Amino acid sequence: MKTAIVATGSELIRGFVQDINSRFLARNLTELGFENQNIFICGDQKETIKESILRAAKIADLIFITGGLGPTKDDQTKNAFAEALDLELEYSTKIEKNLTKIFKSSNLNQNNLSQAYIPQGAKVINNNFGTAPALKLKNKNNCFYLLPGVPSELKYLFREKIISDLKSLSQNKFLVKELNFIGIGEANLAAKVENLALNPALEISYQAGQAEVKLRIKVNSASQKSFKQKNEIVNKARNKLKKEFSCFIYGEDNESLEAKIKKILIKKKLKVATAESFTGGLLAKRLTKLPGSSEYFLGSIVAYNQEIKEKLLKLKQSFLKKYGVVSQECVEAMAVSAANIFSSDLALASSGAAGPAAHADQKAGIMFISIFYQGQSKTFKIEKNYGRAANTFYASQIALFELYKLIAQKRNDLNA
Amino acid sequence: MKTAIVATGSELIRGFVQDINSRFLARNLTELGFENQNIFICGDQKETIKESILRAAKIADLIFITGGLGPTKDDQTKNAFAEALDLELEYSTKIEKNLTKIFKSSNLNQNNLSQAYIPQGAKVINNNFGTAPALKLKNKNNCFYLLPGVPSELKYLFREKIISDLKSLSQNKFLVKELNFIGIGEANLAAKVENLALNPALEISYQAGQAEVKLRIKVNSASQKSFKQKNEIVNKARNKLKKEFSCFIYGEDNESLEAKIKKILIKKKLKVATAESFTGGLLAKRLTKLPGSSEYFLGSIVAYNQEIKEKLLKLKQSFLKKYGVVSQECVEAMAVSAANIFSSDLALASSGAAGPAAHADQKAGIMFISIFYQGQSKTFKIEKNYGRAANTFYASQIALFELYKLIAQKRNDLNA
Repeated sequence: MKTAIVATGSELIRGFVQDINSRFLARNLTELGFENQNIFICGDQKETIKESILRAAKIADLIFITGGLGPTKDDQTKNAFAEALDLELEYSTKIEKNLTKIFKSSNLNQNNLSQAYIPQGAKVINNNFGTAPALKLKNKNNCFYLLPGVPSELKYLFREKIISDLKSLSQNKFLVKELNFIGIGEANLAAKVENLALNPALEISYQAGQAEVKLRIKVNSASQKSFKQKNEIVNKARNKLKKEFSCFIYGEDNESLEAKIKKILIKKKLKVATAESFTGGLLAKRLTKLPGSSEYFLGSIVAYNQEIKEKLLKLKQSFLKKYGVVSQECVEAMAVSAANIFSSDLALASSGAAGPAAHADQKAGIMFISIFYQGQSKTFKIEKNYGRAANTFYASQIALFELYKLIAQKRNDLNA
Repeated sequence: MKTAIVATGSELIRGFVQDINSRFLARNLTELGFENQNIFICGDQKETIKESILRAAKIADLIFITGGLGPTKDDQTKNAFAEALDLELEYSTKIEKNLTKIFKSSNLNQNNLSQAYIPQGAKVINNNFGTAPALKLKNKNNCFYLLPGVPSELKYLFREKIISDLKSLSQNKFLVKELNFIGIGEANLAAKVENLALNPALEISYQAGQAEVKLRIKVNSASQKSFKQKNEIVNKARNKLKKEFSCFIYGEDNESLEAKIKKILIKKKLKVATAESFTGGLLAKRLTKLPGSSEYFLGSIVAYNQEIKEKLLKLKQSFLKKYGVVSQECVEAMAVSAANIFSSDLALASSGAAGPAAHADQKAGIMFISIFYQGQSKTFKIEKNYGRAANTFYASQIALFELYKLIAQKRNDLNA
């Protein structure tokens, strides 16, 4: 069953206010198994609201219209709706009674009473948190819900008074599974996934994030399969993808990399420190992002030039001269040094040319990351040149992801 | 001049992701003097994108289309756009060249190269933060901008590469002035500005950012005054505000705090280091944000527990026990220590309870920042409790802003 959302309000199209109602409705409708088609955001004028409603009615069975139900002159949604569907407005004594209760008698004015006019045939859904009730109206092949624009009222009305209605309408609750990837680009991942020849009933989509990709799996909505069958298809695909791309997946759904790392560090009672050059404190910042990070994070030395690397990280001048500060040798020595200085179980180090200029004879985008753990170094050379900020963040993703993979291993065998 | 926005992405109409791009665009277009008409949010299918584009073209002069420019099969925006306007797609060697630069040769596959096809006549706007460039195309009475859906890329492209174009189209030319505030809230600032009784022809608006507020000054669009008169009114107000709020303003228009600091540090040949506790590397990260930061930034010691403060920052156990690690005394000693260890002209230190839990007998949101410069300490106690991430960022704003004010002083007199 198809749905559409019309959000009204000049503050929305002018960008003064973020329209969070539509996303709330869309997410809930999706979870209930509806297929939401469009979100139309328009201003307060009757004509633009009318146009949006008519368009929504063409493409969807169920239409949710939000905002413009208040008592002032710029609240035109009911007028626009009545005109669009060629309905009269009629006076609702039920609403009047409710308004009288809210305002006592003293403050009730003509503006307030205008809220008692509703399109004929509309069912009033009482709003315990505001003066504007929600309305429901069936018309030919469409069913319309008119909801107030105040997010807290809308959420309350939807959850308490509408969702049970919708559950009985929805035929196919569908499952969506998400997998979160690091270290593989959207295009490359999509090409590899295509080669897996997954069940053709599946719909796979990709969303690029900040140096990561989210892959979504769901069964095509046209599919006639049962809920149980769909569930099986999605889970089978998820398992196949997890197995195939284990070295690129850090989590599912809304899991964050920092949270995954935190969990293991605490469980295994591991302490971590960093020695940073081009990441300039970003590794430390990300490792201290979550509350309770002092349980596993000890500290960092950001050594932004050679002299400081010598002085604080105790690297020898001759060594740095021989290999250069942007080298596998240097970054490994930095990690070992950090582990010694902080007496940590794990140390993470970075050295590279973040850009835009070359640095220490390495061109922009050449970056090294090293992890020292259980007496061994794992080192990664990264070559990306998206610009300074993006390069640095990308390297921090690789660093934390590789750290995660290392500590998530069941056996303590780095060579496995 | 009328504008419309088409946001594409099945993740948006399904409510998995909040569409923040449209609001960003709408807000900026409004501020530039355009009249935004509608925001159409549609899925990834070619037909629905095409329909939305055609509808937008009917109601607006300028149309912004976001998302669906990536390399995978669900990226259909360019195809839909070409069909809607009856254009052919042609291969852009400019884009191919750029992709080759990003991917080196090894990882470049057919999916990536699909990004090189663009509607004929489109102008390529290079994207330094991702693989999908923006496109601009004039067609009959409309002008279209196609922008990538990743918010950071969209914002970057809009601010750096498109806004100057738009300023010349907008009737409200050049008359918007912005002042950037730190350390004063939006409501408080607005109340104080009202008391100044500025010229009634002015329209003052506020935009809350991340621990800062942008104040915008423009002449009401209904005003019949000449360009010169408007310019004078705006400049007079700007000067009055700058004088009145000098201790809260760090810059104008698109100036960043980091860039302001960089300029002075380089000019005065000053070197800076940090000693960080609850900021966990954020001060270092922000001081290394810009290219060339090695000219003035030496390094940082992130000391996330008492033992590390003793060992690396050479603070005495008895001292820390006496005053506590979250105290004015401790943070001052940390800054002095950092200046000694790094032999820097300036040192910045942080110690506090970022939250959500209390720390070292101080409740969440009690934070100290100290700056050591020319033999003297300037220390700030901050009490805010917006949540861990916001607290930390807010403290870093205060730290960098106070550092800026200190080094921007003409005379070397801290007591002035």
